[in-house]
Amino acid sequence: MKLTSLIEAQKIVLDESKSFGEEVVSLDASIHRTLEEPVVADRDYPPFNRAAMDGIAIHSDDLGKYTSFIIKETVFAGAYVKEALKAGECYKIMTGASVPDSADTIVRVEDITIEGQKAQLNTENIRSQQNIALKGEDAHQGDVLLNKGHKLAACDITTMASAGYAKVKVSKKPSVTIITTGSEIKAVGEEVLPFQIRDSNSHALKAYLKSYAIDDVVHYRIDDDQSELSEAITKGLASDVLILTGGVSMGEADFVPKLLVESGVKQKLHKVAIKPGKPIWFGTSKDTIVFGLPGNPLSCQVNFLLFIEPFLRACFGMLPKTPLYLPLMKTKTKKNTLDVLYPARLQQQKEGVYVETIAFNGSGDIRATKESDGLVLHAGDKKELKEGELVPFYLW
Amino acid sequence: MKLTSLIEAQKIVLDESKSFGEEVVSLDASIHRTLEEPVVADRDYPPFNRAAMDGIAIHSDDLGKYTSFIIKETVFAGAYVKEALKAGECYKIMTGASVPDSADTIVRVEDITIEGQKAQLNTENIRSQQNIALKGEDAHQGDVLLNKGHKLAACDITTMASAGYAKVKVSKKPSVTIITTGSEIKAVGEEVLPFQIRDSNSHALKAYLKSYAIDDVVHYRIDDDQSELSEAITKGLASDVLILTGGVSMGEADFVPKLLVESGVKQKLHKVAIKPGKPIWFGTSKDTIVFGLPGNPLSCQVNFLLFIEPFLRACFGMLPKTPLYLPLMKTKTKKNTLDVLYPARLQQQKEGVYVETIAFNGSGDIRATKESDGLVLHAGDKKELKEGELVPFYLW
Repeated sequence: MKLTSLIEAQKIVLDESKSFGEEVVSLDASIHRTLEEPVVADRDYPPFNRAAMDGIAIHSDDLGKYTSFIIKETVFAGAYVKEALKAGECYKIMTGASVPDSADTIVRVEDITIEGQKAQLNTENIRSQQNIALKGEDAHQGDVLLNKGHKLAACDITTMASAGYAKVKVSKKPSVTIITTGSEIKAVGEEVLPFQIRDSNSHALKAYLKSYAIDDVVHYRIDDDQSELSEAITKGLASDVLILTGGVSMGEADFVPKLLVESGVKQKLHKVAIKPGKPIWFGTSKDTIVFGLPGNPLSCQVNFLLFIEPFLRACFGMLPKTPLYLPLMKTKTKKNTLDVLYPARLQQQKEGVYVETIAFNGSGDIRATKESDGLVLHAGDKKELKEGELVPFYLW
Repeated sequence: MKLTSLIEAQKIVLDESKSFGEEVVSLDASIHRTLEEPVVADRDYPPFNRAAMDGIAIHSDDLGKYTSFIIKETVFAGAYVKEALKAGECYKIMTGASVPDSADTIVRVEDITIEGQKAQLNTENIRSQQNIALKGEDAHQGDVLLNKGHKLAACDITTMASAGYAKVKVSKKPSVTIITTGSEIKAVGEEVLPFQIRDSNSHALKAYLKSYAIDDVVHYRIDDDQSELSEAITKGLASDVLILTGGVSMGEADFVPKLLVESGVKQKLHKVAIKPGKPIWFGTSKDTIVFGLPGNPLSCQVNFLLFIEPFLRACFGMLPKTPLYLPLMKTKTKKNTLDVLYPARLQQQKEGVYVETIAFNGSGDIRATKESDGLVLHAGDKKELKEGELVPFYLW
């Protein structure tokens, strides 16, 4: 069977991306979610001329005329002052306070001496408007602070809170069903016989999905039994996304593709020219996007990174993750013409940050991802990635 | 007042780090938590000689003697086979199946022709033991797969699941109280007058704490009123960690340090030679670690990254985050002798990944962290960071 190229395969998957709708969530629940609206400044920022230092506020017209000022009153942050300064007068003022209109310059507390109701300047080095963050200098009312499609990180929470977004419109998350197939697979807590292994893929997929705040996940573990599997597929097709692991290769118990097609799922893709993860199957039914992943844990994770994550990002209106191009620690050669993905970690060297691939025995190796930060892509048409060469590195 | 250096200040804070104990959680709940036990291989991995391909399993003694084999039976993954091969016999075998002891070599399905009960080899290019992942080749029983103190990422979930860790021992998380002080501060959902701003720090701190899975967080918003603040401090001292924002500088309403000391908290640190975040206050009481952060949103976040995050990591037995040293996009100069932190983003250039600092107006600028990936440190004793120079970059 002809293999589809990685680029072509990713295009086939991304072509099926779609919005799952939008919903309004609380600010605190919005982290890791994707904006479905731009975050806009509700007013100028700073919203007022803000004192950037503790000290006295004077008017610059008085500079050169007075070296001592009568303290009219003290302006605390959050307070509103009605009485304007007259010539030779000042306010004591606190960091964060709104500077009254009759003042335009702040002299910090370190540069004055206060005696009773008088403040004496100890410096001549005073610029008009110094130590004031001017109204609107950071952003004007209506300015876009965060773009639609932005994935919200902790530092964005500050911005949204400041601009008054107690609630925010974000992309709705898909419901997901995971079906782990394979008669050799036992639940993690169950006893395993020597020829059995444990279900790791459902837990890993749930963990990766969680990084997109997707937690509406149902999981079935099914033996290689066609009628049980058919039944689980029917249930899974009630979800927005159905992910199966195992049963997509050439073995006699690999009837996942056949059963999906019988259940009305239209095949869009089967087998991609990559390693690991070659046997991936992809299809769509009326309401459900279906990924059939190979059962090897590394293959499953690589396929998540190459197909499911870009698909979800596209559905959420997010830009695709761009790889970092970083120098390789040690030359890698390969004989096949597949696009090969190596688990790799970042390594600081004197000259900068390098990527070090991790030695492992194959996609079933339990240590394959140990202390890895992501994947290096070794393009199919390159025999060799040279030491020091910039290689595409995808963070997990 | 003499400023403490950043390095000295971090040491003072880290000296107070302590375990908050350990607890056992489910595998799925363990992501982002810290291992309090090594994850150990419960058996050899692979646990059996595992078929890496679909095909037939033969014994290498037969190579060169037979080109056609009688199919004895089909071995599926998860099945146990009792009958041993005799000379000239083979099993049909599926990927993931346990290779019976009487076979040691797999010929993939693409290299054979099956007619009835016979399998004919179509290649002479067969190596003994090919296409088998040998028992124990990845890890031996008792090998450490993940170290104590490792922060668990999604790819580690696979490893733990495979090794049978349905539950795992992780560091207990501290309870946290956040007190936002400042009469100018309103809740995000409340109406704001022109001279008032919104509470962003509590939401940002909660978001940063969430990245360490800390969600036992109580929050009080308190005006600059000494008796109300005292009361909130007393309540906060029931938590493992108390974080206050605002009120730690030199203004007349900055009575956080005074009230903390009156509440029995011993001051360990006040004011560090950094910008932003200089006014930070740190102290300890019998059962509580107390951080007093300045109220500017950027200062608050910088202090989290420089002090609270390293403190929490140390408490969890994790290594400190190491900065990446990456080349700077554009020369930065400074006049002061403080360690200055610039929000910055990663930028891919032809020659590799660069760090680009973000232009902003000061630590109150609502856009200061826009699309930032972390912070660049400009060391106090350096006037200039040159374009292309490797600079320490801390990911948020």
